This record gives sequence, structure tokens and C-alpha cells, in this order.
Amino acid sequence: MKGIWFSEEHTTGASFAFKIEEQLYSEQSEFQLIEVFATKEFGRVLVMDGCIMLSDKDEFIYHEMLVHVPLAVHPRVRKVLIVGGGDGGCLRELIRYPEIESIELVEIDEAVVLTAKRFFPQLAIGYEDPRVKVIYDDGLRYVRQNEQSYDLIIVDSTDPFGPGESLFTKEFYGHCLARLNADGIMVNQHESPYYRENAEEVSLIYAKTSTVFPLVRCYQAHIPMYPSGHWLFGFLSRKYDPVKDHNRERWEQRGLKTLYYNSDLHTGSFALPNYVRALFSQAKAEY
Amino acid sequence: MKGIWFSEEHTTGASFAFKIEEQLYSEQSEFQLIEVFATKEFGRVLVMDGCIMLSDKDEFIYHEMLVHVPLAVHPRVRKVLIVGGGDGGCLRELIRYPEIESIELVEIDEAVVLTAKRFFPQLAIGYEDPRVKVIYDDGLRYVRQNEQSYDLIIVDSTDPFGPGESLFTKEFYGHCLARLNADGIMVNQHESPYYRENAEEVSLIYAKTSTVFPLVRCYQAHIPMYPSGHWLFGFLSRKYDPVKDHNRERWEQRGLKTLYYNSDLHTGSFALPNYVRALFSQAKAEY
Repeated sequence: MKGIWFSEEHTTGASFAFKIEEQLYSEQSEFQLIEVFATKEFGRVLVMDGCIMLSDKDEFIYHEMLVHVPLAVHPRVRKVLIVGGGDGGCLRELIRYPEIESIELVEIDEAVVLTAKRFFPQLAIGYEDPRVKVIYDDGLRYVRQNEQSYDLIIVDSTDPFGPGESLFTKEFYGHCLARLNADGIMVNQHESPYYRENAEEVSLIYAKTSTVFPLVRCYQAHIPMYPSGHWLFGFLSRKYDPVKDHNRERWEQRGLKTLYYNSDLHTGSFALPNYVRALFSQAKAEY
Repeated sequence: MKGIWFSEEHTTGASFAFKIEEQLYSEQSEFQLIEVFATKEFGRVLVMDGCIMLSDKDEFIYHEMLVHVPLAVHPRVRKVLIVGGGDGGCLRELIRYPEIESIELVEIDEAVVLTAKRFFPQLAIGYEDPRVKVIYDDGLRYVRQNEQSYDLIIVDSTDPFGPGESLFTKEFYGHCLARLNADGIMVNQHESPYYRENAEEVSLIYAKTSTVFPLVRCYQAHIPMYPSGHWLFGFLSRKYDPVKDHNRERWEQRGLKTLYYNSDLHTGSFALPNYVRALFSQAKAEY
């Protein structure tokens, strides 16, 4: 292991490391430490408060799964709210849908947006789209004060500690439900089921969202740079079931090219292992 | 990162490490360096030639996926051959099926079996089953000389270098096909699609097996301790399609308890991301 390595401890007993060619940027913003590294293996890597957020090599997995899954279910998304997601990855996928009329992105930390625009220009291209409006504010405060209605809310948050913590509260989930149209959908990043501490977060998010939303289903993706590489997302709604109401023909007729998502995988991603299913049934029983 | 850590480089730019409580065993066998570590996070971990083979915490994922997928397709498995698999994990899952009459396990390295029996007794319980016969031999030589017929061949090998290398040759695949009954199934560990070098192996295995077997389909699982955590398996046959011929009712009537595998996941595991599908189509075109 010659050279300089960045290491992220996933637990007190497991860690992942990548080799650095050059540290391109480091800034202690008002909210968090933001770092950008150049690597051979992963291209550029964005790290916030010591946690790997994304890399050029694998960011497509996370962003495609947060955006295309709900868009292949809801028949007519016009108004979208992104909470977090300052890196622009979800925006980039959303602007590929011409029927979307407006996208609000509420990001607490302007420094994330500026960093993305400067170091990940291909990720941040969505900021140039005229349908996009950026609001620098706390996500919880924004949905609490807001009186608008959305077809889709995407919660693209950091982990349930630090600046993203309020985005994992029942209060936040309740305001999100209130801001959704009757057939609206919310998706959220839902942490990893593998390591015990992460799994406890998974249970807690599921228990909380299940007391607020009539339908909560989780789906999974392989995201190698995140702890365990096994990552979950939540699909929350009043009306739509992500598998029964999945309209594969309609989505495929769009002709969108994707590197991870496809219609078979849409259904497959909701087929969770037994040990993950058990986290949810325990969560409901214990909460 | 206090304490002693074992680190495995997945590529020249990425590595995974786990914290060691104690090194329980180390032996340079005739074929490879075998090590066993006690850890808090993963329980005991088996390492061979510096590569993590399995841990108490996650071995169930790999072994359930190699065994239950073909057993939920083939209607009457009587005779099984395991090539490799000296740790006993596949055996343990197989002996849960009462209709199986004989299981031959051909393992090149007796030291692996002895290590499993000593340090992973719950993994190695299958060795006590009277239907099991262990042969210490090279897998390629065994299928070349053999004149028997099997309903199922499981190739539970190490990586395509070192002692397992001959188990990734067209000659080996050809002999396996010849040893299968007309409706027989073979499954093989198929490496990871994520890092470039691993992905090249995936393409090569797929290209080779596809020239030998009429039907080759790949499926995936989340195995956090393997490189990238995204692991593939091959399903190879003359007759059965793993999704169309999947008999979920018959399998569920068995009442087997599993921690990872279930019937929905069976189908879902064959729904591969686009970038993995692309590896296969390129492989066929280039080989």
C-alpha cells in the first residue's frame, strides 16, 4: 500500500480505503468539511465530514436509482422537490424528463453546490436548466413553511448525524407527506442493512416513515464505495405500489440510456434478502 | 485505526480492511497460505493467499446463493458434485435436501477441509453426513477422468489465479457439461463486475462458458467482504432457464429457513444492472 490513502472506517472493525493522486480541495464550510480527491481508480471523489459521498466511477448507480424508480411509476410528474442533493446528481437525471415543469432543490450548504460545479461539472449540469430553482435553507424548515404541492420529493441526504439529522425525523416525514399531492411519491436514501449500527438506522427510518406514510417499500442497489456496498432506498406514497404500478412500457418508450437502472432491475431491486426483511418486521414491532 | 488490521487490496487503488482480535491459525499448505483470524465485527475470518474467503458474519450469503438457486429450479436433484468448496459451506446447505442421494466434494487442498473442521465447525457440519464423499484431487483432473453423471455441479472455486486457475478453462467447462445429465445444472462463482480487472474476468468466464453451455445466465448477490461487495454467479444448463423454470411453490413447501435467499430474490438476483449486461454482450462479441 505505497502512496497516500484515504481511509473511511465503516465500523470500529471494518474500513475501506482508496489511493489518492492529489487532494484537489478542502474547505470547512459552515456545516461540514468538504474534500475533493483525484484518484486513478475512482476518478474524482467527494468526501464530506470524512464520509465518501460519491465518485466519478460509481455516482451513476445512486442517482439513477433515486430518480428513475419513482419516474417509472408515477404517470405524470410535473413538480419535484429535492431535499439535499447539492452535488447535482439527482438534478442531472431529472432534467432528462421533458414533462417535468419545475424542480426545487433545497440544500443547506451552498458550499456543496459550488464544489460540485467546480470539480464535478458533468454531475452539476442540471444547474443550468431553466426549470431548476435552488434554495439555500434547512430542508425541515423549508417543508414546514412551504405551502406548495409536489408530485415527487427526493430526499438525497447525508447520514442521520451531522447536518442531515433533521431529515430523519417524524416531523420531517409528516411535513413531506403534507406537501405531496394525493398521488405523490417520496424516495429517500435509507442507509445500509449490513453492519449493526447502520442496520439500526435502517430499522428506525423504516419504523418512523411507516407511521407516517400509508405505503413504505424499500429497494436496494450495489454501491461499492458506501459501507458494505449494499445500499437501501425508501419508496413512500399514499397510492402507488412501486412494483404493481410500475409501467415498464411507458418508461422504456422514453428511450433514456442508463448505466445501472433498467425495467427488470426495477422489480428486482425490491426483492430484499430475508435478513433485511427481518429488520423491517422487527422495526415495526419494536417502535 | 488503532490495533492490528488485516488489509486486502482489491485493486492497486482500493482496499478493504478488518480489525483483528487474534490470529488463530496460519499454515502454508502445499497449495496456498491459509489463515484464520478472530474479529469482533465478522466473527472468524478465513483468508487464503491474502484473499478473504469467508467470515462467520456473511458466509451464509454466498453459500445460500450457490445452492438454493439451482435447487429451486431442478425438480429432482439426486447426485451432486462440488468442485472446490472445502470449507463445507455448500455442503451444509445441500444436506438440508433429503432427496439428494450422494454428494461428492473434490477439493485440491486437504488443509482447507481440516481448517474448516477445526475453526468453523458450524460451517463444516456437512462432513458428518453419510451421503457425502470427499475426494482430494484437482477438480479438472477429476471431471476429466470421471464417467459419472450428475444432476448438479457446483463450482465453488477461489479466484482465476493460483490453485483455482484450471477451473476457469474451456476444457474444464466442457468436461463438466459432459458429466451433467441432460437436465443437469451447473452453477459457478463468477467474480465481480465492478473493478476493471475483475470485470475482465467476468467477461472471460461468460464468453468461455457460453461457447460450451447452451444456456448461461448470471445472477448477483451483496457480499460485503468480497471486492466491491457486488458478486456474480453463473447458472449453466442445457434445459432449464433459472427464471422461467423457477418453481417457487415447490421450494417454499420445503419450509427451509434461509437468511438471504427467498423466492422473490431468486428472480430479482437475475435482474442485472445495464453496465453488467454490457460486459456480457461485449464478451460474446470479442471472444
